[in-house]
Amino acid sequence: MLQLYIGNKNYSSWSMRPWVLLRQVGIPFEEVPVRFDSFDANSQFKRQLKDVSPTAKVPVLVDGDLTVWDTLAIAEYLAEKFPDRQLWPQDAATRAHARSVVAEMHSGFGQLRSHCPMNIEARLPHIGALIWRDQPGVRADVERLGQMWSELLARHRGQMLYGEFSIADAFFAPVCMRLVTYALPVPAVVAAYVQRVQALPGVAAWIEAALAEQDFRDFEEPYRLARD
Amino acid sequence: MLQLYIGNKNYSSWSMRPWVLLRQVGIPFEEVPVRFDSFDANSQFKRQLKDVSPTAKVPVLVDGDLTVWDTLAIAEYLAEKFPDRQLWPQDAATRAHARSVVAEMHSGFGQLRSHCPMNIEARLPHIGALIWRDQPGVRADVERLGQMWSELLARHRGQMLYGEFSIADAFFAPVCMRLVTYALPVPAVVAAYVQRVQALPGVAAWIEAALAEQDFRDFEEPYRLARD
Repeated sequence: MLQLYIGNKNYSSWSMRPWVLLRQVGIPFEEVPVRFDSFDANSQFKRQLKDVSPTAKVPVLVDGDLTVWDTLAIAEYLAEKFPDRQLWPQDAATRAHARSVVAEMHSGFGQLRSHCPMNIEARLPHIGALIWRDQPGVRADVERLGQMWSELLARHRGQMLYGEFSIADAFFAPVCMRLVTYALPVPAVVAAYVQRVQALPGVAAWIEAALAEQDFRDFEEPYRLARD
Repeated sequence: MLQLYIGNKNYSSWSMRPWVLLRQVGIPFEEVPVRFDSFDANSQFKRQLKDVSPTAKVPVLVDGDLTVWDTLAIAEYLAEKFPDRQLWPQDAATRAHARSVVAEMHSGFGQLRSHCPMNIEARLPHIGALIWRDQPGVRADVERLGQMWSELLARHRGQMLYGEFSIADAFFAPVCMRLVTYALPVPAVVAAYVQRVQALPGVAAWIEAALAEQDFRDFEEPYRLARD
Protein backbone atom coordinates (compact mmCIF):
# COMPACT_ATOMS: atom_id res chain seq x y z
CA MET A 1 0.00 0.00 0.00
CA LEU A 2 1.29 3.47 -0.88
CA GLN A 3 1.91 5.73 2.11
CA LEU A 4 1.63 9.50 1.85
CA TYR A 5 3.10 11.64 4.62
CA ILE A 6 1.29 14.97 4.89
CA GLY A 7 1.17 18.02 7.16
CA ASN A 8 -1.87 19.86 8.55
CA LYS A 9 -4.64 19.81 5.97
CA ASN A 10 -5.69 23.37 6.73
CA TYR A 11 -2.26 24.76 5.98
CA SER A 12 -0.11 22.39 3.93
CA SER A 13 -0.60 23.32 0.31
CA TRP A 14 2.12 20.99 -0.94
CA SER A 15 0.60 18.04 0.94
CA MET A 16 -2.77 18.80 -0.62
CA ARG A 17 -1.59 18.28 -4.21
CA PRO A 18 -0.64 14.57 -4.22
CA TRP A 19 -3.41 13.72 -1.73
CA VAL A 20 -6.04 15.24 -4.03
CA LEU A 21 -4.45 13.56 -7.03
CA LEU A 22 -4.56 10.10 -5.44
CA ARG A 23 -8.02 10.52 -3.98
CA GLN A 24 -9.60 12.07 -7.07
CA VAL A 25 -8.56 9.21 -9.36
CA GLY A 26 -9.20 6.50 -6.76
CA ILE A 27 -5.69 5.17 -6.13
CA PRO A 28 -5.71 3.55 -2.67
CA PHE A 29 -3.18 4.92 -0.19
CA GLU A 30 -2.54 5.19 3.51
CA GLU A 31 -2.35 8.73 4.87
CA VAL A 32 0.35 9.44 7.48
CA PRO A 33 -0.40 12.79 9.13
CA VAL A 34 2.54 14.63 10.67
CA ARG A 35 1.27 17.56 12.69
CA PHE A 36 3.01 20.91 12.25
CA ASP A 37 4.42 21.71 15.69
CA SER A 38 7.28 23.86 14.41
CA PHE A 39 9.88 23.65 11.68
CA ASP A 40 12.89 23.80 14.02
CA ALA A 41 15.40 21.00 13.66
CA ASN A 42 14.34 19.59 17.02
CA SER A 43 10.60 19.75 16.39
CA GLN A 44 8.56 16.57 16.49
CA PHE A 45 7.68 17.27 12.84
CA LYS A 46 11.30 17.33 11.68
CA ARG A 47 12.33 14.42 13.87
CA GLN A 48 9.54 12.23 12.51
CA LEU A 49 10.27 13.15 8.89
CA LYS A 50 14.04 13.01 8.90
CA ASP A 51 13.89 9.24 9.20
CA VAL A 52 11.70 9.13 6.10
CA SER A 53 13.03 11.78 3.74
CA PRO A 54 16.40 13.52 3.18
CA THR A 55 14.73 16.95 3.18
CA ALA A 56 12.41 16.29 6.17
CA LYS A 57 9.56 18.03 4.36
CA VAL A 58 6.05 16.99 3.41
CA PRO A 59 4.72 15.49 1.26
CA VAL A 60 6.61 12.21 1.02
CA LEU A 61 5.37 9.15 -0.85
CA VAL A 62 6.64 5.78 0.31
CA ASP A 63 6.12 2.74 -1.92
CA GLY A 64 7.82 -0.24 -0.30
CA ASP A 65 11.56 0.49 -0.33
CA LEU A 66 11.14 3.58 -2.47
CA THR A 67 10.83 7.13 -1.12
CA VAL A 68 9.74 9.99 -3.39
CA TRP A 69 10.13 13.33 -1.61
CA ASP A 70 8.90 16.08 -3.90
CA THR A 71 5.37 16.81 -5.07
CA LEU A 72 6.23 16.96 -8.75
CA ALA A 73 8.35 13.81 -8.57
CA ILE A 74 5.43 12.08 -6.80
CA ALA A 75 3.07 13.14 -9.58
CA GLU A 76 5.43 11.83 -12.27
CA TYR A 77 5.92 8.58 -10.38
CA LEU A 78 2.18 8.04 -10.05
CA ALA A 79 1.62 8.89 -13.72
CA GLU A 80 4.12 6.19 -14.68
CA LYS A 81 2.87 3.61 -12.18
CA PHE A 82 -0.81 4.03 -13.00
CA PRO A 83 -0.92 4.76 -16.75
CA ASP A 84 -4.61 3.81 -16.94
CA ARG A 85 -5.52 6.77 -14.69
CA GLN A 86 -4.25 9.19 -17.35
CA LEU A 87 -2.86 11.67 -14.84
CA TRP A 88 -1.22 13.66 -17.64
CA PRO A 89 -2.98 14.58 -20.91
CA GLN A 90 -2.49 11.76 -23.41
CA ASP A 91 -1.36 13.84 -26.38
CA ALA A 92 2.42 14.48 -26.26
CA ALA A 93 2.24 18.18 -27.12
CA THR A 94 -0.60 18.81 -24.67
CA ARG A 95 1.33 16.89 -22.02
CA ALA A 96 4.39 19.11 -22.62
CA HIS A 97 2.16 22.15 -22.18
CA ALA A 98 0.71 20.74 -18.95
CA ARG A 99 4.20 20.02 -17.66
CA SER A 100 5.23 23.64 -18.39
CA VAL A 101 2.23 24.90 -16.43
CA VAL A 102 2.82 22.54 -13.52
CA ALA A 103 6.54 23.33 -13.43
CA GLU A 104 5.68 27.05 -13.42
CA MET A 105 3.59 26.40 -10.30
CA HIS A 106 6.32 24.23 -8.78
CA SER A 107 8.94 26.99 -8.79
CA GLY A 108 6.87 30.13 -9.15
CA PHE A 109 4.03 32.34 -7.93
CA GLY A 110 6.23 33.26 -4.97
CA GLN A 111 4.47 36.53 -4.16
CA LEU A 112 1.05 34.91 -3.93
CA ARG A 113 2.46 32.04 -1.90
CA SER A 114 4.27 34.24 0.64
CA HIS A 115 1.60 36.92 1.11
CA CYS A 116 -1.41 34.60 0.98
CA PRO A 117 -0.51 31.35 2.75
CA MET A 118 -3.11 28.62 2.42
CA ASN A 119 -5.59 28.67 5.28
CA ILE A 120 -8.67 26.79 4.22
CA GLU A 121 -10.87 27.53 7.22
CA ALA A 122 -10.11 31.27 7.36
CA ARG A 123 -12.04 34.00 5.56
CA LEU A 124 -9.80 37.03 5.16
CA PRO A 125 -11.30 39.29 2.47
CA HIS A 126 -10.17 42.47 4.27
CA ILE A 127 -6.58 41.20 4.37
CA GLY A 128 -6.91 40.21 0.73
CA ALA A 129 -8.05 43.73 -0.18
CA LEU A 130 -5.02 45.27 1.52
CA ILE A 131 -2.67 42.82 -0.17
CA TRP A 132 -4.31 43.51 -3.50
CA ARG A 133 -3.87 47.26 -3.03
CA ASP A 134 -0.28 47.14 -1.81
CA GLN A 135 1.41 44.15 -3.45
CA PRO A 136 1.92 44.46 -7.20
CA GLY A 137 3.70 41.09 -7.21
CA VAL A 138 0.54 39.39 -5.94
CA ARG A 139 -1.52 41.15 -8.57
CA ALA A 140 0.93 40.01 -11.25
CA ASP A 141 0.77 36.40 -10.03
CA VAL A 142 -3.04 36.38 -10.02
CA GLU A 143 -3.14 38.07 -13.41
CA ARG A 144 -0.86 35.37 -14.83
CA LEU A 145 -3.07 32.64 -13.32
CA GLY A 146 -6.17 34.25 -14.81
CA GLN A 147 -4.55 34.46 -18.23
CA MET A 148 -3.32 30.86 -18.07
CA TRP A 149 -6.56 29.36 -16.84
CA SER A 150 -8.83 31.39 -19.14
CA GLU A 151 -6.79 30.38 -22.15
CA LEU A 152 -6.75 26.68 -21.21
CA LEU A 153 -10.45 26.53 -20.34
CA ALA A 154 -11.31 28.16 -23.68
CA ARG A 155 -8.95 25.92 -25.64
CA HIS A 156 -9.98 22.59 -24.13
CA ARG A 157 -13.64 23.48 -23.61
CA GLY A 158 -13.79 21.33 -20.51
CA GLN A 159 -14.52 21.53 -16.84
CA MET A 160 -10.86 21.26 -15.95
CA LEU A 161 -7.74 22.95 -17.36
CA TYR A 162 -7.02 20.24 -19.92
CA GLY A 163 -10.61 19.07 -20.34
CA GLU A 164 -10.54 16.15 -17.92
CA PHE A 165 -8.99 16.27 -14.46
CA SER A 166 -5.19 16.04 -14.54
CA ILE A 167 -2.09 16.73 -12.44
CA ALA A 168 -2.44 20.39 -13.46
CA ASP A 169 -5.74 20.76 -11.57
CA ALA A 170 -4.29 19.04 -8.50
CA PHE A 171 -1.35 21.46 -8.61
CA PHE A 172 -3.61 24.51 -8.72
CA ALA A 173 -6.16 23.30 -6.16
CA PRO A 174 -4.34 25.01 -3.23
CA VAL A 175 -4.19 28.20 -5.30
CA CYS A 176 -7.97 28.03 -5.67
CA MET A 177 -8.22 27.80 -1.87
CA ARG A 178 -6.11 30.95 -1.52
CA LEU A 179 -8.26 32.88 -3.99
CA VAL A 180 -11.30 31.97 -1.86
CA THR A 181 -9.74 32.72 1.56
CA TYR A 182 -8.42 36.14 0.52
CA ALA A 183 -11.30 36.89 -1.91
CA LEU A 184 -8.88 38.05 -4.59
CA PRO A 185 -10.58 39.49 -7.68
CA VAL A 186 -10.60 37.16 -10.68
CA PRO A 187 -12.56 37.06 -13.96
CA ALA A 188 -15.87 35.16 -13.94
CA VAL A 189 -14.47 32.27 -15.96
CA VAL A 190 -11.74 31.80 -13.37
CA ALA A 191 -14.18 32.07 -10.45
CA ALA A 192 -16.31 29.37 -12.07
CA TYR A 193 -13.25 27.11 -12.40
CA VAL A 194 -12.39 27.70 -8.73
CA GLN A 195 -15.93 26.60 -7.83
CA ARG A 196 -15.61 23.43 -9.91
CA VAL A 197 -12.26 22.56 -8.35
CA GLN A 198 -13.73 22.89 -4.85
CA ALA A 199 -16.54 20.56 -5.87
CA LEU A 200 -14.25 17.78 -7.11
CA PRO A 201 -14.74 14.82 -4.74
CA GLY A 202 -11.00 14.64 -4.00
CA VAL A 203 -10.83 18.35 -3.17
CA ALA A 204 -14.10 18.37 -1.21
CA ALA A 205 -12.83 15.50 0.94
CA TRP A 206 -9.63 17.41 1.71
CA ILE A 207 -11.56 20.60 2.57
CA GLU A 208 -13.90 18.69 4.87
CA ALA A 209 -10.97 17.17 6.76
CA ALA A 210 -9.20 20.55 6.91
CA LEU A 211 -12.27 22.18 8.48
CA ALA A 212 -12.51 19.37 11.03
CA GLU A 213 -8.89 19.85 12.17
CA GLN A 214 -9.40 23.05 14.20
CA ASP A 215 -5.68 23.13 14.94
CA PHE A 216 -4.57 26.76 15.12
CA ARG A 217 -0.81 27.10 14.51
CA ASP A 218 0.63 30.58 15.20
CA PHE A 219 3.50 30.28 12.73
CA GLU A 220 1.04 29.60 9.89
CA GLU A 221 -1.22 32.52 10.88
CA PRO A 222 0.27 35.90 9.93
CA TYR A 223 -3.21 37.47 9.98
CA ARG A 224 -5.10 35.94 12.93
CA LEU A 225 -4.61 35.70 16.70
CA ALA A 226 -7.08 32.85 17.08
CA ARG A 227 -9.69 30.87 15.19
CA ASP A 228 -12.75 32.96 14.33
CA MET B 1 14.94 21.64 -35.80
CA LEU B 2 14.50 22.28 -32.11
CA GLN B 3 15.10 25.88 -31.05
CA LEU B 4 16.35 26.75 -27.57
CA TYR B 5 16.09 30.35 -26.38
CA ILE B 6 18.75 31.14 -23.80
CA GLY B 7 20.13 34.13 -21.89
CA ASN B 8 23.76 35.14 -21.32
CA LYS B 9 25.87 32.03 -20.94
CA ASN B 10 27.99 33.55 -18.18
CA TYR B 11 24.98 34.25 -15.98
CA SER B 12 21.92 32.23 -16.97
CA SER B 13 21.95 29.09 -14.86
CA TRP B 14 18.50 27.97 -16.02
CA SER B 15 19.49 28.32 -19.68
CA MET B 16 22.59 26.23 -19.04
CA ARG B 17 20.65 23.14 -17.96
CA PRO B 18 18.74 22.20 -21.15
CA TRP B 19 21.59 23.44 -23.38
CA VAL B 20 24.05 21.12 -21.63
CA LEU B 21 21.53 18.30 -21.74
CA LEU B 22 20.98 18.63 -25.49
CA ARG B 23 24.65 19.13 -26.31
CA GLN B 24 25.97 16.38 -24.06
CA VAL B 25 23.77 13.68 -25.63
CA GLY B 26 24.12 15.02 -29.16
CA ILE B 27 20.57 16.14 -29.93
CA PRO B 28 20.79 18.77 -32.70
CA PHE B 29 19.25 22.16 -31.90
CA GLU B 30 19.42 25.77 -32.90
CA GLU B 31 20.45 28.18 -30.16
CA VAL B 32 18.61 31.51 -29.98
CA PRO B 33 20.55 33.85 -27.67
CA VAL B 34 18.57 36.64 -26.02
CA ARG B 35 20.95 39.04 -24.34
CA PHE B 36 20.14 40.17 -20.81
CA ASP B 37 19.69 43.95 -21.10
CA SER B 38 17.34 44.25 -18.13
CA PHE B 39 14.32 42.42 -16.80
CA ASP B 40 11.96 45.43 -16.96
CA ALA B 41 8.76 44.89 -18.89
CA ASN B 42 10.02 47.22 -21.64
CA SER B 43 13.46 45.66 -21.96
CA GLN B 44 14.53 44.21 -25.27
CA PHE B 45 14.86 40.87 -23.45
CA LYS B 46 11.25 40.82 -22.28
CA ARG B 47 9.89 42.18 -25.55
CA GLN B 48 11.66 39.49 -27.56
CA LEU B 49 10.54 36.68 -25.25
CA LYS B 50 6.97 37.68 -24.65
CA ASP B 51 6.12 36.74 -28.24
CA VAL B 52 7.57 33.27 -27.59
CA SER B 53 6.59 32.33 -24.04
CA PRO B 54 3.80 33.31 -21.62
CA THR B 55 6.31 33.92 -18.82
CA ALA B 56 8.87 35.78 -20.97
CA LYS B 57 11.70 33.91 -19.25
CA VAL B 58 14.54 31.74 -20.51
CA PRO B 59 14.96 28.95 -21.33
CA VAL B 60 12.24 28.22 -23.86
CA LEU B 61 12.22 25.22 -26.17
CA VAL B 62 10.33 25.57 -29.44
CA ASP B 63 9.56 22.44 -31.46
CA GLY B 64 7.47 23.44 -34.45
CA ASP B 65 4.13 24.66 -33.08
CA LEU B 66 4.95 23.57 -29.55
CA THR B 67 6.48 25.83 -26.88
CA VAL B 68 7.86 24.39 -23.64
CA TRP B 69 8.75 27.15 -21.21
CA ASP B 70 10.22 25.62 -18.09
CA THR B 71 13.53 23.80 -17.65
CA LEU B 72 12.06 20.74 -15.98
CA ALA B 73 9.24 20.48 -18.51
CA ILE B 74 11.84 20.76 -21.29
CA ALA B 75 13.83 17.91 -19.74
CA GLU B 76 10.73 15.70 -19.49
CA TYR B 77 9.74 16.54 -23.06
CA LEU B 78 13.19 15.64 -24.38
CA ALA B 79 13.25 12.41 -22.34
CA GLU B 80 9.97 11.38 -23.98
CA LYS B 81 10.92 12.50 -27.49
CA PHE B 82 14.35 10.88 -27.49
CA PRO B 83 13.94 7.68 -25.45
CA ASP B 84 17.13 6.19 -26.96
CA ARG B 85 19.22 8.90 -25.27
CA GLN B 86 18.18 7.62 -21.83
CA LEU B 87 18.02 11.05 -20.25
CA TRP B 88 16.50 9.57 -17.08
CA PRO B 89 17.79 6.40 -15.37
CA GLN B 90 16.07 3.38 -16.91
CA ASP B 91 15.01 1.65 -13.69
CA ALA B 92 11.65 3.00 -12.44
CA ALA B 93 12.67 3.34 -8.79
CA THR B 94 15.99 4.99 -9.66
CA ARG B 95 14.14 7.31 -12.03
CA ALA B 96 11.75 8.31 -9.22
CA HIS B 97 14.78 9.06 -7.05
CA ALA B 98 16.37 11.13 -9.80
CA ARG B 99 13.12 13.05 -10.28
CA SER B 100 13.02 13.81 -6.53
CA VAL B 101 16.56 15.16 -6.67
CA VAL B 102 15.90 17.22 -9.79
CA ALA B 103 12.62 18.58 -8.40
CA GLU B 104 14.44 19.53 -5.19
CA MET B 105 16.84 21.58 -7.33
CA HIS B 106 13.96 23.03 -9.34
CA SER B 107 12.25 24.61 -6.35
CA GLY B 108 14.99 24.70 -3.74
CA PHE B 109 18.50 25.72 -2.74
CA GLY B 110 17.23 29.29 -2.57
CA GLN B 111 19.94 30.60 -0.25
CA LEU B 112 22.76 29.35 -2.44
CA ARG B 113 21.04 30.68 -5.54
CA SER B 114 20.41 34.17 -4.15
CA HIS B 115 23.74 34.70 -2.39
CA CYS B 116 25.94 33.03 -5.02
CA PRO B 117 24.53 33.86 -8.46
CA MET B 118 26.17 31.99 -11.32
CA ASN B 119 29.06 33.93 -12.82
CA ILE B 120 31.27 31.53 -14.71
CA GLU B 121 34.10 33.87 -15.58
CA ALA B 122 34.43 35.39 -12.08
CA ARG B 123 36.67 34.11 -9.29
CA LEU B 124 35.30 35.29 -5.95
CA PRO B 125 36.84 33.16 -3.19
CA HIS B 126 36.97 36.12 -0.74
CA ILE B 127 33.26 36.79 -1.26
CA GLY B 128 32.61 33.08 -0.88
CA ALA B 129 34.49 33.05 2.44
CA LEU B 130 32.36 35.91 3.78
CA ILE B 131 29.15 34.24 2.62
CA TRP B 132 30.26 30.98 4.19
CA ARG B 133 30.96 32.71 7.49
CA ASP B 134 27.76 34.78 7.61
CA GLN B 135 25.04 32.80 5.83
CA PRO B 136 23.95 29.62 7.59
CA GLY B 137 21.34 29.04 4.87
CA VAL B 138 24.08 28.80 2.25
CA ARG B 139 26.03 26.40 4.45
CA ALA B 140 22.89 24.27 4.87
CA ASP B 141 22.29 24.21 1.10
CA VAL B 142 25.88 23.16 0.36
CA GLU B 143 25.80 20.59 3.14
CA ARG B 144 22.65 19.06 1.64
CA LEU B 145 24.28 18.97 -1.82
CA GLY B 146 27.34 17.28 -0.38
CA GLN B 147 25.24 14.69 1.40
CA MET B 148 23.11 14.01 -1.71
CA TRP B 149 26.00 13.79 -4.14
CA SER B 150 28.25 11.72 -1.87
CA GLU B 151 25.48 9.21 -1.28
CA LEU B 152 24.61 8.93 -4.98
CA LEU B 153 28.21 8.64 -6.15
CA ALA B 154 28.83 5.90 -3.59
CA ARG B 155 25.62 4.04 -4.44
CA HIS B 156 25.97 4.08 -8.22
CA ARG B 157 29.76 3.84 -8.30
CA GLY B 158 29.92 5.92 -11.43
CA GLN B 159 31.36 9.13 -12.77
CA MET B 160 27.99 10.87 -12.65
CA LEU B 161 25.24 10.97 -9.99
CA TYR B 162 23.35 7.97 -11.37
CA GLY B 163 26.32 6.25 -12.95
CA GLU B 164 25.90 7.52 -16.49
CA PHE B 165 25.14 11.16 -17.37
CA SER B 166 21.47 12.06 -16.84
CA ILE B 167 19.14 15.02 -16.40
CA ALA B 168 20.27 15.17 -12.76
CA ASP B 169 23.85 16.08 -13.75
CA ALA B 170 22.59 18.72 -16.18
CA PHE B 171 20.46 20.20 -13.38
CA PHE B 172 23.41 20.44 -11.00
CA ALA B 173 25.96 21.69 -13.54
CA PRO B 174 25.27 25.39 -12.73
CA VAL B 175 25.62 24.55 -9.03
CA CYS B 176 29.06 23.13 -9.76
CA MET B 177 29.95 26.44 -11.44
CA ARG B 178 28.88 28.33 -8.31
CA LEU B 179 30.98 26.11 -6.05
CA VAL B 180 33.99 26.92 -8.23
CA THR B 181 33.39 30.69 -8.52
CA TYR B 182 32.87 31.18 -4.79
CA ALA B 183 35.34 28.43 -3.74
CA LEU B 184 32.87 27.03 -1.24
CA PRO B 185 34.30 24.20 0.90
CA VAL B 186 33.11 20.73 -0.09
CA PRO B 187 34.32 17.18 0.64
CA ALA B 188 36.91 15.71 -1.71
CA VAL B 189 34.41 13.33 -3.33
CA VAL B 190 32.20 16.31 -4.18
CA ALA B 191 35.12 18.37 -5.49
CA ALA B 192 36.08 15.46 -7.76
CA TYR B 193 32.51 15.28 -9.11
CA VAL B 194 32.57 19.04 -9.77
CA GLN B 195 35.77 18.54 -11.78
CA ARG B 196 34.21 15.73 -13.81
CA VAL B 197 31.10 17.80 -14.55
CA GLN B 198 33.24 20.69 -15.82
CA ALA B 199 35.07 18.25 -18.10
CA LEU B 200 31.90 16.88 -19.74
CA PRO B 201 32.01 17.96 -23.40
CA GLY B 202 28.56 19.61 -23.12
CA VAL B 203 29.57 21.58 -20.03
CA ALA B 204 33.04 22.47 -21.36
CA ALA B 205 31.46 23.86 -24.53
CA TRP B 206 29.11 26.04 -22.47
CA ILE B 207 31.97 27.30 -20.26
CA GLU B 208 34.11 28.14 -23.29
CA ALA B 209 31.27 30.18 -24.82
CA ALA B 210 30.55 31.87 -21.47
CA LEU B 211 34.19 32.96 -21.15
CA ALA B 212 34.13 34.33 -24.70
CA GLU B 213 31.08 36.52 -24.00
CA GLN B 214 32.81 39.22 -21.95
CA ASP B 215 29.47 40.95 -21.46
CA PHE B 216 29.44 42.55 -18.01
CA ARG B 217 25.88 43.14 -16.75
CA ASP B 218 25.61 45.25 -13.57
CA PHE B 219 22.34 43.69 -12.38
CA GLU B 220 23.94 40.23 -12.42
CA GLU B 221 27.07 41.43 -10.57
CA PRO B 222 26.40 42.04 -6.87
CA TYR B 223 30.12 41.62 -6.09
CA ARG B 224 32.03 43.30 -8.95
CA LEU B 225 32.22 46.79 -10.46
CA ALA B 226 33.86 45.56 -13.67
CA ARG B 227 35.42 42.51 -15.25
CA ASP B 228 38.72 41.57 -13.63
